Formats: sequence, structure tokens, C-alpha cells
Amino acid sequence: MVAELISVGTEILLGNIVNTNSNYLAKKCAEIGISVYYQITVGDNEQRLIDAVKTARSRSDLIIITGGLGPTQDDITKEAVAKAIGRDLVMDEHSKEKIQTYFNERKQGSITPSNWKQALKIEGCQVIDNDNGTAPGYIVEDREAIIMILPGPPNEMIPMFENSMYPYLAKLDDKVFYSKMVKICGIGESQAEEAIIDLIEKQSNPTIAPYAKAGEVHFRVTASANSIEEAQQMMEPIIGELQRRFQDNIYTLEENESLETVVISLLSRHGLTVTTAESCTGGLISSQLVNVPGASDVLNEAIITYSNGAKMKYLGVKEETLTEYGAVSEQTAGEMAIGAANLTKSDTAIAATGIAGPGGGTKEKPVGLVYIASYIKGKVKVKELRLKGDRTKIRRLTATYALDLLRREILNYLNENP
Amino acid sequence: MVAELISVGTEILLGNIVNTNSNYLAKKCAEIGISVYYQITVGDNEQRLIDAVKTARSRSDLIIITGGLGPTQDDITKEAVAKAIGRDLVMDEHSKEKIQTYFNERKQGSITPSNWKQALKIEGCQVIDNDNGTAPGYIVEDREAIIMILPGPPNEMIPMFENSMYPYLAKLDDKVFYSKMVKICGIGESQAEEAIIDLIEKQSNPTIAPYAKAGEVHFRVTASANSIEEAQQMMEPIIGELQRRFQDNIYTLEENESLETVVISLLSRHGLTVTTAESCTGGLISSQLVNVPGASDVLNEAIITYSNGAKMKYLGVKEETLTEYGAVSEQTAGEMAIGAANLTKSDTAIAATGIAGPGGGTKEKPVGLVYIASYIKGKVKVKELRLKGDRTKIRRLTATYALDLLRREILNYLNENP
Repeated sequence: MVAELISVGTEILLGNIVNTNSNYLAKKCAEIGISVYYQITVGDNEQRLIDAVKTARSRSDLIIITGGLGPTQDDITKEAVAKAIGRDLVMDEHSKEKIQTYFNERKQGSITPSNWKQALKIEGCQVIDNDNGTAPGYIVEDREAIIMILPGPPNEMIPMFENSMYPYLAKLDDKVFYSKMVKICGIGESQAEEAIIDLIEKQSNPTIAPYAKAGEVHFRVTASANSIEEAQQMMEPIIGELQRRFQDNIYTLEENESLETVVISLLSRHGLTVTTAESCTGGLISSQLVNVPGASDVLNEAIITYSNGAKMKYLGVKEETLTEYGAVSEQTAGEMAIGAANLTKSDTAIAATGIAGPGGGTKEKPVGLVYIASYIKGKVKVKELRLKGDRTKIRRLTATYALDLLRREILNYLNENP
Repeated sequence: MVAELISVGTEILLGNIVNTNSNYLAKKCAEIGISVYYQITVGDNEQRLIDAVKTARSRSDLIIITGGLGPTQDDITKEAVAKAIGRDLVMDEHSKEKIQTYFNERKQGSITPSNWKQALKIEGCQVIDNDNGTAPGYIVEDREAIIMILPGPPNEMIPMFENSMYPYLAKLDDKVFYSKMVKICGIGESQAEEAIIDLIEKQSNPTIAPYAKAGEVHFRVTASANSIEEAQQMMEPIIGELQRRFQDNIYTLEENESLETVVISLLSRHGLTVTTAESCTGGLISSQLVNVPGASDVLNEAIITYSNGAKMKYLGVKEETLTEYGAVSEQTAGEMAIGAANLTKSDTAIAATGIAGPGGGTKEKPVGLVYIASYIKGKVKVKELRLKGDRTKIRRLTATYALDLLRREILNYLNENP
């Protein structure tokens, strides 16, 4: 099945917003084995949208259109699709009721005549409820193609696609799709791909698709089968092989788990507390930890020691250490981690000190030189990093690698103290 | 002039990367008054790209193509464009030399025959040097349209566009373009647009285009004229009018200045130091400050006090305050700011405490209730926020509004102590 994605919206053509909808839908199509050959963006212009739909209909089996379903005169998606495929627009009583209820519940403003425009549907189509807004979605089964129409705002589009369009598509060929996300930290993208190039090359079902993220590599493994159980069974050997090859570089197999979620849940499960002592990252590591709901169970306090003075005052980094080795050194990073754990009486700690640039680099200590340290119940581990990129990228990579270092050290600790 | 953007790359169709190139190019076209009617994405498939170029050529005056210029067999952009417009590919000696030099300088690997593929150009086109990679860009002046071809990686594409394609386009109609970015914090998007709806409606030259960012609204004002001086003169009244209407809600007129840059430079210029005391933001505010190069001039240390215990221990928040008003209260926020300034002997401080969710909300103190406080040389100011969104969004908005609060209070302080 060949799909085409059409995004409608002048704000995309003007560059006011980035088209993340196409990216989301492309991923979802890839997941269930639908090939996307074209992604098109057109503005809120009826004739150009009609042309785009006609072209898409002539070359694709599935057309997914997002945007242009609002209540204003500018919103012309339904009108254009109806004209392109030669059908009428008719009032949908169910949508009318839903809109009424939506306004009653929210008590926001009053319904205007233009709101009723959103209750019009293309004759003979299936109406899909929108639980997060007033614009319903539609599935039109046309002679030439299946046409799906969804609202543009991602917080309305994504739940609608997940709940209604995705199951519809998955059912089309009687297959179920099941996928796992193998998330890896500590190995570069090309190195990771090379390590499994034989698996990638001979893939068919399950499929393996790589996704790169700053400092991480993710592989999505997807199997299609007649039942979830069968798909899971088909996945097992390939997941096992990836685990064998990547070992503890894999931090999760779950799509919705991030590195910081994994660290927080490891700590929480084993009754360990954590703190951070940050120099160049300036709060980025603690902020990532605190972004996980429930972080308060394991993190009480943390410190940003940007100056040498602060490193001595709070963390007890020795003046001799700073004089002899410098603030960006293995020794300072280690003392920062120990000092942070002592100051806050935490079981574990993460420290980071480095030169994020653009200034401050020397020949011996260039921009990108960073030391990260972990502390866990008396044991300190320091790692030297040599990172490339601008200030923002160096700081982000530092935070990722520092979280990963603590994750590995917790696992080591648990192995040694079962 | 009507433009069409074509992105080439299977990795976009598969959803492996977000198409940020189209967004960037759309913005740039809007800036210089070029209308983009279509954005197209096709994979690394020669026939589909040929079709896309032919269609674009029949309806657009300018075609900007990105991607597919690499050295592999999969990279087919030049080949497809040459076929679509009926021209040959010929060896470009200058590109050949550049590639040789590039490899010599970097001493990375050796040149393979496929690298020489990158020295082929479309007959009769202008070759644009790539200072950040081996794939040159091209400008083809065809009977039907101007076709620009650029490499896909943004770090190669953007400098090439800025340095060569943008000046080429700007020169086409003998006009120069000049723009200012009016960045506003503290007013919602719709409220800000409403405040200048009369200006937006009657705009022609200069143009006013709104851009929304979490917690901020930006208006890009662009004038086209025969000279920079003339364009600047044309801008003056409209910029003056925006300043009159938005007053000190405007924090900068410069595109490359962010809110945190403005705060750091205000502090630095007036010899003031700063610290932060963060609860729900967990280091996000300090991290944003530290992301500005030179932050070390004004920030020495900062603290994350997530628990009540930490708020008392480091910041001297009174136990009675926490018992009587709670950790999320005007009183606690104020005491946090004072305590942080005292602890670190800083001239100014920012504090934030709130309920970021998803748990922890009550009827009296719902998720999204946040107090931010600023301290400047003895004067404390606290603000209550009622924010909507998920945990990440609430924390981001809190950080933005807290930085803005300090900015406003510094300006007040400077007014009162000239």
C-alpha cells in the first residue's frame, strides 16, 4: 500500500511552524508497513488543494490529509476534498451534538454560525470523534483511494490517529503490528549500525529501523503477524540478538521510557537517593531528572557550582586539586561527586565539569573536553569525554552521558551487592 | 515570484528525521517576499524526483531542492534534475580541486571513485562552493524556472543558502530586504495579535509576521527597498508604533538575542551577579542562563531545593512559612529568592516553586499553580502563575516567565537608581 501525506496550512508554507505532523504520520506508516512516496504541503487555497488531492488520488492508495478543518473561511479542506472526488457536503447530526456538548462543558464563549461548518461531513464518509477539539476527522472510502482527514493541531491529530486511524489501517490487511524500541546509549550511530549491519540488510519481518538522537541510538523493531502473541514470538530472537550484541548499552526496550525515566526508576526501585553537582551543564542534568514525574522520591536537592569558589565552598573540592589539575579535570569531577553526596547525604551523585565553549579552550584543554563522575555508596567513577559541537550540543551530550554513567554504575553496584 | 521547495530523502519519508530544511527555507522566502505555494518531499527515487521537478517547473518560478547530493548510488538529485530539464552532467574541474583539498585538510579516509561523482555538475549551471562538506550546490537558470540545489545536512545547507542563494535571490528584483524581530514576553499570542490587528491588516511593506514560541510572541518586521538605509527608514515608524503599544513587554529587537541572553547582558553591563533557587523547574532556569556564553561573569552558583528540608537548610525558608502557607506559595517563593541571594551573596536572584503535575494538585492548589520571585538588592517581587499543559510545558513556561520577571525588575531598579 502506497500512502501520500498532505499537510494543509499557510503557516507551514510561511515557515511559522515546523511540519511535525508529517514526521509523526511517516513514522506511523513505516511502523505498519505502509510506504510513503510523497509528502505535500499546500496553503489554505482551495484550487491548489483540489489539484493536490486529484494528483494524490491518481498515484496513491491512501491519502492522509491534516489541517484546514477549523471554523473559519480560510479552512477549506473538506470543501476541496469533496470537490476533488465529486461528492457533496452534508450536515452530520452527531457532530452537531458533539460540538454543542463541547461548548457546554467548557463554558468558553458561545457557538457561532461558523462553528456549525465543522459539523458538515463529506457524503458517505465515516466521522471520527475529536476528544480534544471541535473539528471531527473523517475516513472517506473512495473508488480510487482511502482518504483520511484529520485536524492540524498535533494534540488533536495524534490521539485521533492513534485511537481511530491506526487501528483502521492495521486491520486493512488483517495483520497486527507489534514493535519494541531498543534504546542505546554509549555507542555512536554508525558504530551501532555497523554492529548489526547483517541484521539490517537481511531484515524483512520483523523490520529494524534506526533513529538517532543526541548521544543515543534507537532501533525500532516491528513485527507483523496474525496476532500479538505471534508477533511477539517473531520479535523474540531478534530482540535477543540485539541484547547479545549491545549488552548493557541498551537502557530500555520501551518506547515511552527515556534515559532519565530509567535512572529515576532504578533509583526508586532500590531505595537510593541522588543529587547532582553541575558546572558546565548548569542545571541541565538535574532539570532532566526533575522532568520525570515522581523525581521527588529520589532527589531532594542539587547544586550548580559554576565558579571554583563554589566548588570549594559547597562540595569541598580541595584548593590544591583546582590549582594542580584545574577545574576541568578527572580529579575535580571526582571530588565534586563525593562532595555533592556528602553535602546532601545522598546515596548517589552525578557531577560534570567541562569546557562548553565557544571561549575558554586551550591546546591542552580544548572546547569539548568534559569530565563526568558518578558516585554510588562510596564508589566514584570518572569518565573523560571529548565532544564536538556548539555550546548547546556539548552541554546536552554531557547531560546524556552523565545520566548514562550513573545508570551503568547503579547496575554494577546491584550486581556486586545483590 | 512563486517558489516551490522539494526535499529529497527517504529518511524524511520514513519519519527518521524531521524536515527542518523546508521550514528554514520557507521562512527565508517569506522574508524576501517570495511566495511558497508548495513544499514537496520525495524519496531517493529518480523517476519520482524527475516527475516532481517537471511539475514544479510547470507551475513555479523558483525551485529550491535540498538533499540527494551525497557520493552514493542512492544520491540521484543532480541526475534527476538534469533529465527533467534535458541537460547533461559534465565534470567540474573546480569542484574536483575543492574535493581534493577538503580531503587533504581533514586527513579523513581516502577519496573513493564515488567522491568524484560529487564533482559532476549540470551543464551550464553555476557551482556554489560548500565550505562545510564535499557536495557543492548549484544554481540552474532554466527557461522555465530558476532551480537551486543544495546539500541536505542543515549545517551545510544553511551557510550555503545564507552566503550564496539568499544574496542571489535578493538581487533578483534589485531590492534589499531588512528585518527586525520584535520579541515579546508577558502577553499571550492572541492578545498580542489583537493589539496590532490594524497594523497586520493594512501591512504591505514593511510586512509583519507573527511567530509563537512557548511563553513568547515574536513579530518579524521586514521592509524591502532600494538600499539598506531606505529600508531602515521605512521600518522606523512601524517599529516605533510596536514599541509604543508593547512597551517593556518587548525584550529585544534582535533576531539572535534570546530572553536569557538579554538577562545575562543586562546583569553583566551593570555589574550585577545572579543566582537561582529552583523547585519545580529543577535547574531549568540556571541551565538556560548557563547556556549563554559568558554566563560565568554573573553566575557563580545556584541551587535546586526540591524538598522542604532543602528549602529550609540552604535558603532559610522558615518552617512556619512552609507549615502555614505551603511550599507552593507567594511567601515561600519570596523567602527562597531572598535566601538564595543571601547564601550566595548575589545581587539578584530568581526563585520558582510550583506544581508541575501530573500528580500533586489539589482543588486549592491545582496543577499549573506556580509562584516565581525575583530579588534585586533587597527588593523582592513575587508573581502567581496559573499555567496549562503537561509537566514539561509547565516547567518551560515557568522558566521563561521567571527570567522575564527578573528582566523587568532589573529595568525597574535601573530606572529608580539611575
